[in-house]
Amino acid sequence: MIGGGPDAFIGAVHRIAANLDGQIELVCGAFSSQAEKSKAMGKSLFLDRSRSYSSYTEMIEREKRLPEGERMDFVSIVTPNHIHFDPAKLALENGFHVIIDKPLTLTLTEAKQLKKVVEKTGLVLAVTHAYTGYPMVKEARQLVASGKIGKIRKVYVEYPQGWLSQPEEKTNNKQAAWRVDPKRAGLGGATGDIGTHAANLAEYITNSNIVELCSSLNSVVKGRLLDDDAAAFLKFDNDATGILVATQVASGQENNLCIKVYGDKGGLEWRQEEPNTLIVRSLDKPKEVYRAGMGYLSDAAKKAARVPSGHPEGYLEAFANVYMAFANAVRDYRPGKKINAAKYDFPDVEDGVRGMAFVEAMVKSSKSNQKWTTIKN
Amino acid sequence: MIGGGPDAFIGAVHRIAANLDGQIELVCGAFSSQAEKSKAMGKSLFLDRSRSYSSYTEMIEREKRLPEGERMDFVSIVTPNHIHFDPAKLALENGFHVIIDKPLTLTLTEAKQLKKVVEKTGLVLAVTHAYTGYPMVKEARQLVASGKIGKIRKVYVEYPQGWLSQPEEKTNNKQAAWRVDPKRAGLGGATGDIGTHAANLAEYITNSNIVELCSSLNSVVKGRLLDDDAAAFLKFDNDATGILVATQVASGQENNLCIKVYGDKGGLEWRQEEPNTLIVRSLDKPKEVYRAGMGYLSDAAKKAARVPSGHPEGYLEAFANVYMAFANAVRDYRPGKKINAAKYDFPDVEDGVRGMAFVEAMVKSSKSNQKWTTIKN
Amino acid sequence: MIGGGPDAFIGAVHRIAANLDGQIELVCGAFSSQAEKSKAMGKSLFLDRSRSYSSYTEMIEREKRLPEGERMDFVSIVTPNHIHFDPAKLALENGFHVIIDKPLTLTLTEAKQLKKVVEKTGLVLAVTHAYTGYPMVKEARQLVASGKIGKIRKVYVEYPQGWLSQPEEKTNNKQAAWRVDPKRAGLGGATGDIGTHAANLAEYITNSNIVELCSSLNSVVKGRLLDDDAAAFLKFDNDATGILVATQVASGQENNLCIKVYGDKGGLEWRQEEPNTLIVRSLDKPKEVYRAGMGYLSDAAKKAARVPSGHPEGYLEAFANVYMAFANAVRDYRPGKKINAAKYDFPDVEDGVRGMAFVEAMVKSSKSNQKWTTIKN
Amino acid sequence: MIGGGPDAFIGAVHRIAANLDGQIELVCGAFSSQAEKSKAMGKSLFLDRSRSYSSYTEMIEREKRLPEGERMDFVSIVTPNHIHFDPAKLALENGFHVIIDKPLTLTLTEAKQLKKVVEKTGLVLAVTHAYTGYPMVKEARQLVASGKIGKIRKVYVEYPQGWLSQPEEKTNNKQAAWRVDPKRAGLGGATGDIGTHAANLAEYITNSNIVELCSSLNSVVKGRLLDDDAAAFLKFDNDATGILVATQVASGQENNLCIKVYGDKGGLEWRQEEPNTLIVRSLDKPKEVYRAGMGYLSDAAKKAARVPSGHPEGYLEAFANVYMAFANAVRDYRPGKKINAAKYDFPDVEDGVRGMAFVEAMVKSSKSNQKWTTIKN
Repeated sequence: MIGGGPDAFIGAVHRIAANLDGQIELVCGAFSSQAEKSKAMGKSLFLDRSRSYSSYTEMIEREKRLPEGERMDFVSIVTPNHIHFDPAKLALENGFHVIIDKPLTLTLTEAKQLKKVVEKTGLVLAVTHAYTGYPMVKEARQLVASGKIGKIRKVYVEYPQGWLSQPEEKTNNKQAAWRVDPKRAGLGGATGDIGTHAANLAEYITNSNIVELCSSLNSVVKGRLLDDDAAAFLKFDNDATGILVATQVASGQENNLCIKVYGDKGGLEWRQEEPNTLIVRSLDKPKEVYRAGMGYLSDAAKKAARVPSGHPEGYLEAFANVYMAFANAVRDYRPGKKINAAKYDFPDVEDGVRGMAFVEAMVKSSKSNQKWTTIKN
Repeated sequence: MIGGGPDAFIGAVHRIAANLDGQIELVCGAFSSQAEKSKAMGKSLFLDRSRSYSSYTEMIEREKRLPEGERMDFVSIVTPNHIHFDPAKLALENGFHVIIDKPLTLTLTEAKQLKKVVEKTGLVLAVTHAYTGYPMVKEARQLVASGKIGKIRKVYVEYPQGWLSQPEEKTNNKQAAWRVDPKRAGLGGATGDIGTHAANLAEYITNSNIVELCSSLNSVVKGRLLDDDAAAFLKFDNDATGILVATQVASGQENNLCIKVYGDKGGLEWRQEEPNTLIVRSLDKPKEVYRAGMGYLSDAAKKAARVPSGHPEGYLEAFANVYMAFANAVRDYRPGKKINAAKYDFPDVEDGVRGMAFVEAMVKSSKSNQKWTTIKN
Repeated sequence: MIGGGPDAFIGAVHRIAANLDGQIELVCGAFSSQAEKSKAMGKSLFLDRSRSYSSYTEMIEREKRLPEGERMDFVSIVTPNHIHFDPAKLALENGFHVIIDKPLTLTLTEAKQLKKVVEKTGLVLAVTHAYTGYPMVKEARQLVASGKIGKIRKVYVEYPQGWLSQPEEKTNNKQAAWRVDPKRAGLGGATGDIGTHAANLAEYITNSNIVELCSSLNSVVKGRLLDDDAAAFLKFDNDATGILVATQVASGQENNLCIKVYGDKGGLEWRQEEPNTLIVRSLDKPKEVYRAGMGYLSDAAKKAARVPSGHPEGYLEAFANVYMAFANAVRDYRPGKKINAAKYDFPDVEDGVRGMAFVEAMVKSSKSNQKWTTIKN
Repeated sequence: MIGGGPDAFIGAVHRIAANLDGQIELVCGAFSSQAEKSKAMGKSLFLDRSRSYSSYTEMIEREKRLPEGERMDFVSIVTPNHIHFDPAKLALENGFHVIIDKPLTLTLTEAKQLKKVVEKTGLVLAVTHAYTGYPMVKEARQLVASGKIGKIRKVYVEYPQGWLSQPEEKTNNKQAAWRVDPKRAGLGGATGDIGTHAANLAEYITNSNIVELCSSLNSVVKGRLLDDDAAAFLKFDNDATGILVATQVASGQENNLCIKVYGDKGGLEWRQEEPNTLIVRSLDKPKEVYRAGMGYLSDAAKKAARVPSGHPEGYLEAFANVYMAFANAVRDYRPGKKINAAKYDFPDVEDGVRGMAFVEAMVKSSKSNQKWTTIKN
C-alpha cells in the first residue's frame, strides 16, 4: 500500500475492503513519506518491520528483490491525486499490478500515458469506483442490458454532499485541504472527487458513454480555486440524454449518490445510502422493490452479496467486491494474456482515462459560452 | 365555471377545491361549447338549468344582468391554454374576478396584455399554481424567510411524470391530445404543463426570481412537436443557482414534483407525493422531519391545514387553499382598493406572466448555441 | 348535524367530508345545547337561522314537519359517545337515516338496542370508520379476497398516537377531557377511541371477524380511569391470529395506524400516514408498491379516488367516501327494501355493535387472569 | 472455529466479522465432523493443513499443546444449538476463551451450567447477539440512558421473517432443517432463533430486564413441532411494558427486526434493514433522524463506525463490532482478573442465560391458560 497513513480516510477503507474476504493480505506499505510514521503505521497493522518503507520507490525496489511468493503481488495507491501517476507507473514498470483510487491521475495527459504503460506491460490496473461494486448496481446494469426498461432515454445522476458547505480547508481538515488544492487535486474539485463517480456509475449501469456535455461549475464557498458544485447536461452515445449533479455544498447531505434511469418501458432508481434496494418502475404496473440477496436477482448481483437478504451490506462490501474482482484478474494473470476487465467486472484504466476526460470537459464547458462540449479521450 | 365538461380532469379538481370548505358555491357554468352537453353537465352538478350556458360569452353577458348577490362573483377558467385569454379578459372587463388554470395564457404577449387588464380593472385574478397551497410548502417558504437554512445557494426542482412515455395522444386520450398540440398548448409541452409549476414553486419557496437560464428541451417520443422533456440550469436574482427538470417521459413516475433548497446553514426537501412532510437538514445536527398539522409550525402552515397532524391532507386541499385565498381577496375587494396577493397568499397575474416568460426563455435557450438566456417579463 | 360546535374536531371533518363531492348539503343543525351558540355556528355555516336548533329533539321534531324535499334527509351525529344512542334512536324512529361517529354507543347494551331500532325501521345507519374509505384499504380488501396473498395467517394492526402522553385532560383540551372520562367515553379509553378503528380495519381488510382475544390494558398516565394504552392477541374466525395495538402514549407519534396482513403466499402493508401506497410482498418476487389512482387497481379502489395517481388524497377524501357510500344507500332507500351495506361499502350498525363488543371483551380480558376471552355480540 | 463448513451461513459470517478489522486471524478449525471435509474447508481458508481438525475435541487437545503465541487464543462456536454446550465447556476448561452463536445452549439447564464454568475459569465468553453491534443501536441505548426520551413506558420489538412460510425443511434446506428440529434447536423455533435476538435487543437498549411475559406461540406451517410464529406481552423490571413479535411466516419479509421504545418525553425507532438510521421522536418537536457516522453521536456510536456518514455499514460490520469488543476483552484478560462485559460492550454468558430463560418462559406461557408467567434465570 502506498499512502494510507493514520489520518487518511480512504487508506483504511482500502485495507478493510482488501481484507474482508480473507483472500488478500497486506504484506508491506509505504504509508507515509516520513520513515518513522510509516513504520509506526506498519506496526499497528502487524506488518513485519522490514516491510514498512519510507517511500514507494524504496518499497517497489525492495519488494521486487524478494522471492516470488513472498513479495507483494500488487500495489494499492491511496494517496492524493498528484501522487497517483508516478507510483502507478513505477509499479507497473517493475511488474506489479496496481489498484488505485479515483480519479486515476492529476491530469488527462497523465492518464493517457498511464494507459499506455498498462497496455505495454499487460498488467492489471483497477480504479476503485467502488459504487459499481454494490449488488444492486450490478442488478441495475443487468436489468438495463436485459431490456427490462426498454430503450434508454434519460439518465439522472446526482451526488450531493454537504461536508464542504463551510471552508473546512481552513480548519485542520486534511481531507478537505488537498481536495480544494489544484496542485494536489487537479482541475476538478467536486467534479473530480465525486463527479467522476457519478459519471462512472451512469456509464456502468447504462453500458454506454457520455460523449458531450454542457456544464456549469461553481465555487460556492468564497476563495475556493476549484469547483465545489457542478452540474452538467449529458449526451450519451446511445442517444440518451441526462443530467449530472455533483455538489459538496448541499448542506446537511451526507453522501447521497442517487441514479435514475428511464427507458421507454420503465425506470430504475438506486440510492447509495440505502444500497440494498433497487426500485424498478414500469408502465402500468406497480413499482417493484428489488432487494439484495434475493433469489430472483441476476447472477452478477447474487455473487456480489455475502449474506442472505435482509442483512444489509454496505460501502465496505462494495469496495471489497472491486478488490475481489481485481484479485481474481491478478490471479488469472499470465504474461502475454490479455485481461478483460468487463469479464471480471472491475473499473479499469480505460474507465480511469474516461474519468479524467470527463473532468477536463466539465471544466472546459463551464468556461465556455458555447452550450455543448465534446468529451475527448 | 368555463370549461370542465365531463371528460376534463382539472375541471373536477377546481369544483371540489372550490367547494371543499363550504365557502364557495358553484352557481353557473359554460362547461362545453355544445349547449346540451353544458346543460347536462350543469344538471349533474345540481345547477339551475337556466344557468348552464352554451358559451362563456353568453354566461358573462347573462350573469352580468342578474342582480348583485345573485349573479356569480367570479369566473373559474379551466379550459385548455388557448381558451384562457379571451374569457379572462371578457370576464374582467365585465366586472368579474377570475381564477384561472396555469399557464396563464397561450403566449407571453397575451399574458402581458391580461396583466394590463387586471391592473386597469383592479379586479382579483389568481392562477392555480396549486402546489403552493400545501401547508409544508408554506412552511418551507417561512423557513427560508426566517433564515433557518441561511443564505440560499442551490435550488433543485424536478417534476418527473411518466404518463407521456408513449404516444398517448394517438389513443383516445384528450388530456394528452391538447397538451402536445402547439395550437392549444402554446410554445411549451412539458415546459408549459409542469415546468411552470416547478419554476413557480422554486420562486415561491425562495421568494426570489429566476433571471437567467440555460435549457435543453427534447421531444423524446417521435413525432411530437412540443417538448416532452425539459431541463435547465437556473440563476436566481439572489445569486443562488439551480437546476429545473420537467419531464413527462420518466416511465413509471406519477407526479413526483420534488424540491430541494440549500443554504449555507442547511437545506430543505419537499416532495409532492408525500406532501405532509418537510425534511430540514442542518450542519452537524440530525435531520428534522417537519409534519403538517404540528404545533411547532409557522402560522402560515398551520392555517393551511384542516385536520390534526397524522391525518393526511392532499392535492385537493392544497388546491382548495388557493381557492380560499382567492376567495378571501374577492371578499375584501372594494372598487379602487389594491389587492395584495402576497398578503392573501395566492399566485397572481404577475406569477402568471412570469410563467409565460419562463416558457418563452426555455424554448429560446434550447434552440440557442449560447449558454445563457435572460428571462424577460 | 347533531354536535360539531366551534371547538369540535370531528364535527368539522364530517362537514367537509359530507360537502366534498357536492352531493350532500348541510341544511340544519343542533350544534350546541346552548341556543345562541348553535345559532352562531349555523350562521357561520350559511344556514337559515330558523334551522339552527338548540337541541336535537327540537331539530328532529321541527324538521319532521317540513315538507319532503325540504326537510333534512339524514342526521349526522358527531357528539361524544354518551350522546350517540338517544339522538340516533330518536332520529330513526322519526324516519331519518343516521350517520354516526364511532364508537356506535356508550355501551354494548345500547349498541344492541340501536341495532334493533335500525332493523325495525329499515332505515340506513352508517358508522364512520373512515379508514375503510381509503382507496388502498379497499385495494387491500380486494387483494385478500382475490387470493393474491393466499390463505390469511397473521394480522398485525397497530394504532399508535402520542397526544395523550401527558395529562392533556388537565389542560384546557376538550378533546382529551371527554375521551378519558368513563361517563362520556364508556368502558374504553384508547380501546374505544382508536382500538375500535384498528379492529374494524383488520376485519374489513380480511373480511373475517375477531372471535377471541387476550388483552392487556394500561393507564399509563397517572390518575386516568380508562386505558390510554392497549394491546391484544387476536383470533379470527378464519383461523388467522393477530396482534392489535392501540396506544395514545407513544410519545411523538401522530396517527400512525398501520396494518400488515400475511397469507401463505404473500403479505400486505398499509399505513394511514401515507395512505396512497399499499405494499404487497410475495414469496420470491420483488416487493410491489401499489399506488392509488393507477390503472391496475381493482374497481373498488379506482372508484374511491378522485384524481389521477400522484395527486395525493387523504383523510378527508376517505371520510367523504364513507359519506358518499352512505348517501348512495340513502338515495336508493325505499320503505320496505333492505339495504345491503356491503354492496354500498360502508360500515353499518353491525360493525358498530361489533366495535362495542370488542371494547367490552378487551376490558374484560384485561382484568382476567385467564388468557382468552370470547367476543360476544 | 468449530462448525462453519461449506453449507453453513453463520460460519461464513463469523469468519468475515472476525477478519474484518485485521485484528483477528483464523488459525485453525474443526469445520466438519468429517475429517476430509474439514481439511478441504481449511484449505480453502488458507489454513495450515495440520490445523484443520476432524473434531473439536481433537482441536482443543492439540492446540493446547502448541506453544503460547502460536496456539489459538479463543474458539468460535458456530454449530447448531445442540452442539454449543459441550465444545464451549471443553474449550473453557482447557483455557480457551469462547465466542458462541446464540442461543447459548440447547436448554436453560445447560446455560446455567455453562455460566458456572465461565465463572469458575474466569475466562471470556461472548454470545453473538450481533444486532447490538450496530452503531445506531448503541446510540439508542445511550439516548435512553441520557434521559432523552424520559422514563421508559413502552417497548415494541418485532422480528418478522418470511423464509419459513413454506415447509422449507422438506426441501434440501439445511438451515431450515435443524431450526425446526427440537433435538437440534431446543424448545424454541422462531422463539429461539430470532425471538432471543429481539428480547436481547430490547433489554440492551432499555438497559432493563424482561421479568414477566404472556405469550402465544403457533406452529403455522403444518407438521412443525416447534413454533414458527411467536408473540408476547412483556413486563420489564423498570415498570415498562411491551410487545415482542418473532415470526418466520411473515411471507415476503426478509429480516425486518425493528424496535420502538417510548418514554414520557419521546420515542426511538430503529430498523435493522436500514441500520444506519435512528428515528427520535419528541413531544412537540420535529422528528429527528440520527445517522451513523455523524459528529453529534455518542462516543459509543462513533467508535462503532468505520467510515464517514453516508457510507452505509451493515450486518457484517455490526457482527465485527461484537468480535472486536470480545477481542479487546481477551487481550486485556489476565488470570484472576474479572472482565466486565458491559465495559467492553459485548453480550456475555449472563445474556446467554437470560436468552434461554426467555425461551423457556415463552414456551411455558404459551401452553398455560394463566395470563402471566415469570422468567426465572
